[in-house]
Amino acid sequence: QHRVSTMGFPAVPAPPESERVCVFGTGDLGRSLGLRLLQAGYGVVFGSRRPHSSSSLLPHGAQVLGHAAAAQSAHLIFIAVQREHYDFLVPLANQLKGKVLVDLSNNLKKNQYPEANAEYLQSLVPGAEVVKGFNTLSAWSLQNGPSDANRQVYICGESVEAKQAVIAVAIKLGFSALDRGFLSVARELEDFPLQLFPQWRLPLRIAIGLSAAFFFYLLIRDIIYAYVTQSKDISFRIMVSLANKVCPIVSLIMLSLCYLPGVLASFLQLYRGTKYRRFPDWLDRWMLCRKQLGLLALGFAFLHVLYTLIIPIRYYVWFKNRTTQFDMTTAWRGDSYLSLGILGFGLYVLLGITSLPSVSNALSWREFSFIQSKLGHLTLLLCTAHTYLYGWNRFLSSSTYKWYTPPGYMLCLVLPSVVLLLKLLLITPCVDRTITRIRQGWERGADQRNPKDSQPLIP
Amino acid sequence: QHRVSTMGFPAVPAPPESERVCVFGTGDLGRSLGLRLLQAGYGVVFGSRRPHSSSSLLPHGAQVLGHAAAAQSAHLIFIAVQREHYDFLVPLANQLKGKVLVDLSNNLKKNQYPEANAEYLQSLVPGAEVVKGFNTLSAWSLQNGPSDANRQVYICGESVEAKQAVIAVAIKLGFSALDRGFLSVARELEDFPLQLFPQWRLPLRIAIGLSAAFFFYLLIRDIIYAYVTQSKDISFRIMVSLANKVCPIVSLIMLSLCYLPGVLASFLQLYRGTKYRRFPDWLDRWMLCRKQLGLLALGFAFLHVLYTLIIPIRYYVWFKNRTTQFDMTTAWRGDSYLSLGILGFGLYVLLGITSLPSVSNALSWREFSFIQSKLGHLTLLLCTAHTYLYGWNRFLSSSTYKWYTPPGYMLCLVLPSVVLLLKLLLITPCVDRTITRIRQGWERGADQRNPKDSQPLIP
Amino acid sequence: QHRVSTMGFPAVPAPPESERVCVFGTGDLGRSLGLRLLQAGYGVVFGSRRPHSSSSLLPHGAQVLGHAAAAQSAHLIFIAVQREHYDFLVPLANQLKGKVLVDLSNNLKKNQYPEANAEYLQSLVPGAEVVKGFNTLSAWSLQNGPSDANRQVYICGESVEAKQAVIAVAIKLGFSALDRGFLSVARELEDFPLQLFPQWRLPLRIAIGLSAAFFFYLLIRDIIYAYVTQSKDISFRIMVSLANKVCPIVSLIMLSLCYLPGVLASFLQLYRGTKYRRFPDWLDRWMLCRKQLGLLALGFAFLHVLYTLIIPIRYYVWFKNRTTQFDMTTAWRGDSYLSLGILGFGLYVLLGITSLPSVSNALSWREFSFIQSKLGHLTLLLCTAHTYLYGWNRFLSSSTYKWYTPPGYMLCLVLPSVVLLLKLLLITPCVDRTITRIRQGWERGADQRNPKDSQPLIP
Repeated sequence: QHRVSTMGFPAVPAPPESERVCVFGTGDLGRSLGLRLLQAGYGVVFGSRRPHSSSSLLPHGAQVLGHAAAAQSAHLIFIAVQREHYDFLVPLANQLKGKVLVDLSNNLKKNQYPEANAEYLQSLVPGAEVVKGFNTLSAWSLQNGPSDANRQVYICGESVEAKQAVIAVAIKLGFSALDRGFLSVARELEDFPLQLFPQWRLPLRIAIGLSAAFFFYLLIRDIIYAYVTQSKDISFRIMVSLANKVCPIVSLIMLSLCYLPGVLASFLQLYRGTKYRRFPDWLDRWMLCRKQLGLLALGFAFLHVLYTLIIPIRYYVWFKNRTTQFDMTTAWRGDSYLSLGILGFGLYVLLGITSLPSVSNALSWREFSFIQSKLGHLTLLLCTAHTYLYGWNRFLSSSTYKWYTPPGYMLCLVLPSVVLLLKLLLITPCVDRTITRIRQGWERGADQRNPKDSQPLIP
Repeated sequence: QHRVSTMGFPAVPAPPESERVCVFGTGDLGRSLGLRLLQAGYGVVFGSRRPHSSSSLLPHGAQVLGHAAAAQSAHLIFIAVQREHYDFLVPLANQLKGKVLVDLSNNLKKNQYPEANAEYLQSLVPGAEVVKGFNTLSAWSLQNGPSDANRQVYICGESVEAKQAVIAVAIKLGFSALDRGFLSVARELEDFPLQLFPQWRLPLRIAIGLSAAFFFYLLIRDIIYAYVTQSKDISFRIMVSLANKVCPIVSLIMLSLCYLPGVLASFLQLYRGTKYRRFPDWLDRWMLCRKQLGLLALGFAFLHVLYTLIIPIRYYVWFKNRTTQFDMTTAWRGDSYLSLGILGFGLYVLLGITSLPSVSNALSWREFSFIQSKLGHLTLLLCTAHTYLYGWNRFLSSSTYKWYTPPGYMLCLVLPSVVLLLKLLLITPCVDRTITRIRQGWERGADQRNPKDSQPLIP
Repeated sequence: QHRVSTMGFPAVPAPPESERVCVFGTGDLGRSLGLRLLQAGYGVVFGSRRPHSSSSLLPHGAQVLGHAAAAQSAHLIFIAVQREHYDFLVPLANQLKGKVLVDLSNNLKKNQYPEANAEYLQSLVPGAEVVKGFNTLSAWSLQNGPSDANRQVYICGESVEAKQAVIAVAIKLGFSALDRGFLSVARELEDFPLQLFPQWRLPLRIAIGLSAAFFFYLLIRDIIYAYVTQSKDISFRIMVSLANKVCPIVSLIMLSLCYLPGVLASFLQLYRGTKYRRFPDWLDRWMLCRKQLGLLALGFAFLHVLYTLIIPIRYYVWFKNRTTQFDMTTAWRGDSYLSLGILGFGLYVLLGITSLPSVSNALSWREFSFIQSKLGHLTLLLCTAHTYLYGWNRFLSSSTYKWYTPPGYMLCLVLPSVVLLLKLLLITPCVDRTITRIRQGWERGADQRNPKDSQPLIP
């Protein structure tokens, strides 16, 4: 039963009124849906402009009538017609009065029309109860029934009874339906199938931009510099050595970009002395993509770990010269550097796991904020310390600054250091107390404005 | 309250009619359920053939009556009796009229009976409202209340009111109940507790078969060949070297087996010129286990990564001879090979993460298909290229073909190469256009059959 | 619309009766909620003791009335007042009759009061329908609307109609509401926002205690011993070598602590001859934190893997002496040791993945128990064998026992060996059969007590 077949479908006995549904539209969508409904035991009546000519392609067992007659034969009517043709419903207003119209339509792009298709349909047929639904399914699922990732159906509409009727059909088709609210949510449901990672775009662009910039910067500093000054061709290092410099740099910058907006927002609230004012739009948008910034940072950190771990099996490494004198300080530095990196990566992975929807749903808000804020800043601290230890005494050596440019790891330390310093400032007791009061609703200057109503939290 | 205790249970005051439930059956299941119901505040009446003799083992606070009297005392009756004994209910038809019967039963194996237990129960007592439910819980949960992984209860039945009543009890016992539809779903609910990874069996068998085949093939080619031709005992290499050859080989073959059916289905639709015909059964079954094939492939890739990364800490490796001459081409090849492997594994892990139910549920269908199809084929491409680079110039060297057999990595390249070539063919513009039209409902030859109804998508 | 703004909010036309809600309390919580309700299209009436003086800070568009008048203007009343002030509602009993009161309150600590706030509210105003809800949201979400991890709202209450009304508001505000049952659940909902990983505390303390104990033990045995007996400063090894000893030791002990209580419970049931008796409290509590013990063990195993894999890139390792004679047994032992570790870690990760809520929810109970019990004990077996192979012939060498103390890996083998031995005993056929009978409800001695009712499962 996973595939649709138009041949050999058994004859269905006539079901009672209540078990009959109507489908307007005899295109691919209408035919597929009609077949599914027949298989689930419903009686199906197709509404068509030319009931006699269109019947040959329709699933066996379905009736075909003119639109008016079809509308009168059932309480529930699926509108499997493109929005452009909705106006044929206007003359049917009488027959559609009190009926439940299920709007299945999707658009080809976002904001194609001023209002949602379902709202437009409701405005055309005000006497009917419009329910938006089933449009978030893949075509495959609508045709072949629910599969693993396609069991959930979202619906919305004004009338609770109409929604109940649609939910009953969804359940009978094997889906689980979720009521998302009133018809004003229809636009959101219609945009859903069109979206391709809208919240990931900005973070992805930042990641690609940073990667490209640092790739060329390090290409010049490492490969081209060696070629120009020592005529040495070390271009093969692009594949691993260079990648293993770009990855950690981008990861650390992205991680600090993930924690910077929170710090900025706190300072803004502190400066304004109230939480009752909108943040600037750019800050709002930035805060909304923190999760994506963090997960991309984790991805780069993961690649960095793999690139680092394969170092000893690289062909090239066997030819490296090694110092012959054991040095205690270098041993300490090296091991600390590695250990901090491992602990930082461990916390990084923990942050990633708690970002999984099923895990974060199981956490109380206090737990979620403990992990994402406290452990998040600790991760940033460990990774920054890891990078400082990597640099070690090379910060002061002039030979580090080839062509007067700083190495990549120095550049990438700027942002996390700033974030950590600002955060340190925010958690000093006096600043922290003011922030806490502001977040509990206290407003600077409000005491003067309305002394009776104010309730100082720390009397 | 996590454990059941038959001693020291406090006396419960008589609850109102509506809060009284009846349990038929005084075996372990009935007793455990009765105790849970008592603890949740319900009045419990047991129905028994011998009400006087069976009372000693029943939870304190419960009443015991004959079946007929018990049935009349409550609206909701839990049937905690094995299906074989259901016929005692037939003479009670009058008392059970309009009552809600909750069928808790499970079978010992699938398809033990022609119809579901709940459907059989309904046929015996047509006047009652049968609801299937609670059977998917573990015995532990039914007895001790919901735990972390056992909070969800599935129910099904024809009457919405009856289901509401059962859901209310489920909520009061601390479970969250999900209405899965009509009584025809009962078989599915009854099969659920019996299932042991039904969709994983075929993929697991393929994985074990491939692993065994390649293990023996490589055992002969590597270990036995060395013993026979050079009398060298290198059997210790079985543990790591051989395992690290079998894992990537099986992983790559499984990954291409995961993408092959999709490609075959496209060619079949192309050949038939329509999407309205069933795929052959074997193809259907194959497509349904693609996710499992991919996840097993990821598991083998994960082991391959670990086996590769521990190479430098292996005792044996310290004794390997190394060439003394640095070779630029080898450095390039080696680093590219490693880098491709890392990127491929990174994408592999990403595919695995998006297979998690909570993640794939949060994706729109377009996003899911982008990741699983586009990024999936890219992963296959990267891993195949990784393997080709591993082979490098050894493809042409005759010393590679010990005993005239090709090495494992060559054998495993056949399938992914075929899949990638076929996929390449499918995304050429002219083929892609035809496929897209077919998937939108266009049928080759349909234009002639019914010229009026056809709507050419590309005029 | 992600941020609250008190300025520039458009005037809202007067909504119908049914769309008007009332908010008692004009503090931060009441104001934030009122603004959200206004934005969602509701008419909002604030109830205040001093309706004239408090209006200046309230969101534009809301009405402010005295408590009695406000209560009469709407069916749904949000109580955004702290529990300490609930007594002002007592004189309003007449106006509140039949109204739905939504209790949003949280406490500062658990068990602050003898009964839940919502139950206290219900006792003060018995004529009203109290619904607990919205209190599990973060303040941010209540103010700014649902975000990724804050879409779910839990409610509970006695009246289904009252809950329906509250769910409708929740849906209109963009949340998805889950009915958790009757008002007796209120305490649970009130405790939820206060909790900070309650089930993780004991396992975390065990992990920290074990880590500290083994750290100091190994510090003395490795670093201080070398300093005292050979005057060698190898303190730098603390960062990696010592960490890489502590991690696997703690991981193995925690893993066996995760499987020990199940084994103990089986022996207790075997000894008592019944499953109908409570386990001691300590065993109950131990069993409830098995998942957390296992996940912490996985975390330590993950760190152990990373610490092991970076060994070859450690500076210090380049100076290690190597034996010059290849030894077949050592090669076998080394590779087997690594291979067992890899397979054990692979299964470990698999256990971790199936602990994710969304994955374990998709498993039937039989599948879950197969993975967690069968594969879990196999993991323990592999990891224990891995450790035995690590020790190898050093168990018998006296030089291993510095200062007469055994090395860490020997100490940590005690517990897993005991668990595996006990488990082995449990799965011998005769013991296994008895355990199975007990779990199916059989009681030793029950045959004598009540011979008629007993149903021997194995006749």
